[in-house]
Amino acid sequence: MESLTGYKEKPCAASDVVFRMFCSQHKGYTVYASERILEPDDPTFAEMLRGRKVLLVTTPTVARLYGSLVNDLAERQSLSVKTLILPCRENMKSLELVGDICSAALACELDRKGLLVALGGGVCSDLVTLAASLIRRGINYIRVPTTLIGQVDAGVGIKGAINFGGKKSFLGAFYPPEAVLIDPTFLQTLPVAHLRYGMAEIIKIALICDAELFSLVADHSARLLRSGFQDPFACSRRVLTLAAARMLEELQANPYEDQSYKRLVDLGHTFSPAIEAASSYAFHHGEAVAIDLAMSATISAELGLLAEAERETIIAALIAAGLPIFTELVSEQLCLKALRDIALHRAGSMNLVIPVGIGRAIFLEHEDELPLAVLRRSLKRLAQESREMENAESAFCAYG
Amino acid sequence: MESLTGYKEKPCAASDVVFRMFCSQHKGYTVYASERILEPDDPTFAEMLRGRKVLLVTTPTVARLYGSLVNDLAERQSLSVKTLILPCRENMKSLELVGDICSAALACELDRKGLLVALGGGVCSDLVTLAASLIRRGINYIRVPTTLIGQVDAGVGIKGAINFGGKKSFLGAFYPPEAVLIDPTFLQTLPVAHLRYGMAEIIKIALICDAELFSLVADHSARLLRSGFQDPFACSRRVLTLAAARMLEELQANPYEDQSYKRLVDLGHTFSPAIEAASSYAFHHGEAVAIDLAMSATISAELGLLAEAERETIIAALIAAGLPIFTELVSEQLCLKALRDIALHRAGSMNLVIPVGIGRAIFLEHEDELPLAVLRRSLKRLAQESREMENAESAFCAYG
Repeated sequence: MESLTGYKEKPCAASDVVFRMFCSQHKGYTVYASERILEPDDPTFAEMLRGRKVLLVTTPTVARLYGSLVNDLAERQSLSVKTLILPCRENMKSLELVGDICSAALACELDRKGLLVALGGGVCSDLVTLAASLIRRGINYIRVPTTLIGQVDAGVGIKGAINFGGKKSFLGAFYPPEAVLIDPTFLQTLPVAHLRYGMAEIIKIALICDAELFSLVADHSARLLRSGFQDPFACSRRVLTLAAARMLEELQANPYEDQSYKRLVDLGHTFSPAIEAASSYAFHHGEAVAIDLAMSATISAELGLLAEAERETIIAALIAAGLPIFTELVSEQLCLKALRDIALHRAGSMNLVIPVGIGRAIFLEHEDELPLAVLRRSLKRLAQESREMENAESAFCAYG
Repeated sequence: MESLTGYKEKPCAASDVVFRMFCSQHKGYTVYASERILEPDDPTFAEMLRGRKVLLVTTPTVARLYGSLVNDLAERQSLSVKTLILPCRENMKSLELVGDICSAALACELDRKGLLVALGGGVCSDLVTLAASLIRRGINYIRVPTTLIGQVDAGVGIKGAINFGGKKSFLGAFYPPEAVLIDPTFLQTLPVAHLRYGMAEIIKIALICDAELFSLVADHSARLLRSGFQDPFACSRRVLTLAAARMLEELQANPYEDQSYKRLVDLGHTFSPAIEAASSYAFHHGEAVAIDLAMSATISAELGLLAEAERETIIAALIAAGLPIFTELVSEQLCLKALRDIALHRAGSMNLVIPVGIGRAIFLEHEDELPLAVLRRSLKRLAQESREMENAESAFCAYG
């Protein structure tokens, strides 16, 4: 695979360094992109596991699709790999499942040099991150995200969280992995809906800081979605490595979230938690983010900070990716409550991120920077556009 | 209280800075010594809690002795403090009890600026450290150790651990507190046996790096033990602050134990885990450490590295503190197995710490530096001395 982000180094054959993350004085890790890491003769993944006791945690779906490849790889390369299959659903993200991983680690006698591997989506990664942080006061682990969101968004970062006592993400840890391996061929088997959710996060990061990435996604989303993100090939790989690298650049400045409550990657993440909750989580996170992006762009345009043509481009990109731009659940009340709630998490400031160009975003720090009339006009406009689209049997459901 | 370690700074009235610990780029904390922090008019503790939601975790014994003082302080100073009483016994150090703290934190709506307080011994501190590291991906906590070991040894550090699946300390975290408050008046109510266990750790740290501390303990241990560590007053306070400061100096270089497996504070901690286990934990950790110290000193003397007179001084100090210097459980086999086991935890090296003077210690890195004949002579000698002591109804049980 050619290097798409300009890095030349080849620590493992056929793999590219996407990013080197530095989290603190002693901890850092590398994110690699590599094709077909489960092929029995591919050295990339195998070399990371060689000579270590490994507990690989995965999901029933991934085990069904890739379990035999994992077993073949372990056998062919004489690796010591035990596999634990966990029901990695959002509502199962519990301390009990973390305990299950710890029990399995104890049963296969993982020592301080042992290794956990998270082969799956966000929930699998969350559980493994937390278990790795606890076992023997912290052992190494590797993230191998198999979803698009996992490969381009939080999955390449250092956070893990579980739900507790009915409270989402109440317990967790900031705990850097030893490495992240992005293998785009996993996306071939990902349901198209999940590809769309990932697209929302890619559009988010592109809007913040990368116009080239935005164009790639906007121009090719239909083919990417139809092909399980394999076609056009060069575009697919460049989108993935750019998106992951840009996300990591943004995280780099504040990996433990103790330096600032102004994070550009919060674009699309101010109204979306309220939308998810209001839908009783019928809306997926990625869909809620898409609606939030449409709102943020519209607010920016209504404030005169984003050119109308650029707003149109953003809305068109969301629609082309098969993402929603509005829902009737989004009321003025919901928005105001979301802004108040989010301020509690951002040390009292609203810090609403809005795009002011393709690849450039700013903060609206305080409530008075967002007049109620602007919010009302923005909601009305999106509701109108959304209705028109539905009437025209729009692209909303084109890939359903 | 006069400053005993030369620090002048007074961040809180009537409290002294014992040590400032730096754990990583962003994290650090201060260890304070302060008298009677639960007095309703004392500002030290109260100022740390003011304006924050606080969950104080403590033990049934500490609650019985000091619960009303905590309540009076909270009321008099208008503090928001909820108390959780947990059965903090070694065999209860479980993920379930950590979960109990998290549930209580959720019930009293601790936010990201909320605070946990560990008011108790090592087990309480372990549980709170782990809960604080998990809640909302890490909230602040304060350690208020009420035992001598807690005030001079690991209790002033950053580690927490729980037992899991029958395995001691299998899960845990390195997670720095916001502050440590050492209040020597808590020791007035500590059983004398627990004072002795703390003495073993003080003698350990003194042997590594502080001849003055060693003399203070060796000369005054009887009075210190009889008085609940209150008399001689100046000696008591100097012993406590010196011991804590020296321990922290040693931890400072390698707080996350990822820099080196050669730690001088492992003096007394090579044979002792095997002794504790062989006694089915009838021997307390502090007693096992004392026996290990006697063995290490004797091995050093037999190797010609420690003067015989200094060895006598060390053995006498242990005896004066009412600590054992030998047990029939210590066989040649036990010692050899302990050395092999410990090498697994020290990256393959034995790294046996032995004193070569009062306040100076070195490592025996490899097995061939400890000839079997030397080990045998050392064990024989201690067995003989121990028998003579028992026959003479020695000081072994003087404070029993």
